[in-house]
Amino acid sequence: MKKKSPLYGVKPQVLKVPAYTLHAYEAEVKLNQNENPYDFPDDLKDEIFRRFKARQWCRYPDFVPDSLRLRLAEFTGWQKDGVLVGNGSNELLMATLMVLINNRTRVAIPSPTFTVYRLISTVLGANIADIPLSQDMTYDVDALISKSEESGAGVLIVNTPNNPTGSVLKGEGLQRILDRFSGFVLLDEAYYEFWGQTGFEFLKDYPRLIITRTFSKAMGMASLRVGYLLAHPDLAAQISKAKLPYNVNQFSLTAAEVALENIGRFRPAIEAVMKERERLGGELAELPGLKVYPTEANFFLIEVPVAPRLIFENLYGQGILVRDVSSYPMLSRCLRISVGTPEENDRLLTALRAALNTGAMKA
Amino acid sequence: MKKKSPLYGVKPQVLKVPAYTLHAYEAEVKLNQNENPYDFPDDLKDEIFRRFKARQWCRYPDFVPDSLRLRLAEFTGWQKDGVLVGNGSNELLMATLMVLINNRTRVAIPSPTFTVYRLISTVLGANIADIPLSQDMTYDVDALISKSEESGAGVLIVNTPNNPTGSVLKGEGLQRILDRFSGFVLLDEAYYEFWGQTGFEFLKDYPRLIITRTFSKAMGMASLRVGYLLAHPDLAAQISKAKLPYNVNQFSLTAAEVALENIGRFRPAIEAVMKERERLGGELAELPGLKVYPTEANFFLIEVPVAPRLIFENLYGQGILVRDVSSYPMLSRCLRISVGTPEENDRLLTALRAALNTGAMKA
Repeated sequence: MKKKSPLYGVKPQVLKVPAYTLHAYEAEVKLNQNENPYDFPDDLKDEIFRRFKARQWCRYPDFVPDSLRLRLAEFTGWQKDGVLVGNGSNELLMATLMVLINNRTRVAIPSPTFTVYRLISTVLGANIADIPLSQDMTYDVDALISKSEESGAGVLIVNTPNNPTGSVLKGEGLQRILDRFSGFVLLDEAYYEFWGQTGFEFLKDYPRLIITRTFSKAMGMASLRVGYLLAHPDLAAQISKAKLPYNVNQFSLTAAEVALENIGRFRPAIEAVMKERERLGGELAELPGLKVYPTEANFFLIEVPVAPRLIFENLYGQGILVRDVSSYPMLSRCLRISVGTPEENDRLLTALRAALNTGAMKA
Repeated sequence: MKKKSPLYGVKPQVLKVPAYTLHAYEAEVKLNQNENPYDFPDDLKDEIFRRFKARQWCRYPDFVPDSLRLRLAEFTGWQKDGVLVGNGSNELLMATLMVLINNRTRVAIPSPTFTVYRLISTVLGANIADIPLSQDMTYDVDALISKSEESGAGVLIVNTPNNPTGSVLKGEGLQRILDRFSGFVLLDEAYYEFWGQTGFEFLKDYPRLIITRTFSKAMGMASLRVGYLLAHPDLAAQISKAKLPYNVNQFSLTAAEVALENIGRFRPAIEAVMKERERLGGELAELPGLKVYPTEANFFLIEVPVAPRLIFENLYGQGILVRDVSSYPMLSRCLRISVGTPEENDRLLTALRAALNTGAMKA
């Protein structure tokens, strides 16, 4: 009887890679996941319930969500055959990497950035070429190009604005990369609405550019997991082979359609967040010993004068949850804080002042 | 400027593999997707809406859906750490294969079976060892063992009851496989409720057995995409590395919890389908020229005396949609028909009699 270990045969790179985990903390003020602090509009929720209740739940979703793809095509100005809808943009990122990564493929990933890029690429067998951001946490376009090319990378993944730093890759830089790097460029625009800029204009001329976006942030739909991808239709057709059938549930599809039909309704929340970002950034910058990095996203990376864990715990004790990113490369002194409502940001500022002033902090 | 083709760099096996597609037909009587003909109970829908409306949609689902995992642990009798929840059981299948399949891995797959096993394995770079079913569409346990071993397969995927044949792998056969095959056995039990048997009892003694199940069929939740996996906790921990964070949306999580809290409510629909399966099977067997394969699932594989496409089109003209499976290996004369409500089955029988009697059919 061959009762081998349950792990014999699991890929070595999987055994080695640490799991992506997040300890579940509860708090009154939740500024740890870059969520939209303004909830999805109540009347639109009711409209979604109305439409979804009229459907038989025992039936599968549409095989390909064509009506949502068509709406996204209209919304973005891209052709429908180049639009894919996924269970969150991460699923589309995974599908893309699945069709591009072989065991020997090298994937270039700036650092620090969103952890999942590295995790998925590693599980799929890629070798990672880390490309550090500049010391001021901006993208170094020349380094992105030269290190991607030198490493022989088949794919470069860029998050803009970048989580957790808030840095952006501007159009001019993106174009230079697209002109000089011969691999695929996967541009994750999860936060682009808070920036107001996009690499969309380059899709037409650069068939190796792939853009992913999400309904989780600006649209306030994090709980529903809807993302989309824009790419050359030939490439999209290949990527869709790695997407499971019926991969987005019908409730979330319905919600995304209702959201797009009422796209103007989400503008005020986006603008409120951008306005609060400006105010919060100014106030944070005045706190003693704090360094605030420029951001175009709905969060701030800050460098604190003591161990970040101490500030994290102190804030948590005051009912405020932020993200301790001190284990990321280059960020050993940093925390990440989402922009909340004016009231939440006020509470954060008060609590942070108190934290920085306590004796424990100064010790 | 390196404007290469959008496909240069896409993995060769991806370019080669045909996409999994399903033409979208509309019909009054839908017997083509093995769906539960009885919808999710209306009052439970309202309860789900009530609970979900109370939540902020702008917040992410729980990082790990522990309350649902706990409920599933109680429901199945398996330990919580060995339970994973996925966006449909297919996502869990994909995650499992992602952590097991390297470029050279061989995956043993009975044939004919659910197409997605082959598609995912191929995209991930595996070589497929096809193991044909017996001529009567039953599983040949000795062939499963010898061909899996001879091919050096690291994984054997078995669907029981099997889509699209309805065949089952009984406990005795499963145990023999587990005793003799040294790789992982992935048992897809999507239809097990309609059979009433499971390989669950072997999980404890065979740490290389992995079982997946779904809420899509017996629970009438196909539109919501919830599946679960049972495995040794050490193995589940590795598989979860290939699962994206927040991979199941909060609405579907809520629905699955409400379903489990009211598990007895789904029994009558399952029993109605099983009873209708018996009646429909008897009536189908009496139709001239038709061969009906034994089934333990909520569908029938039938062999028809003329080209299946003709019967398919004729039935479709009468408002009835079935599945043309004639492109599957060994099934060039076959259709697959889901068990519907008594009224739907009556309409099917009448329509099928008419189809078999038309001059066109006999020609």
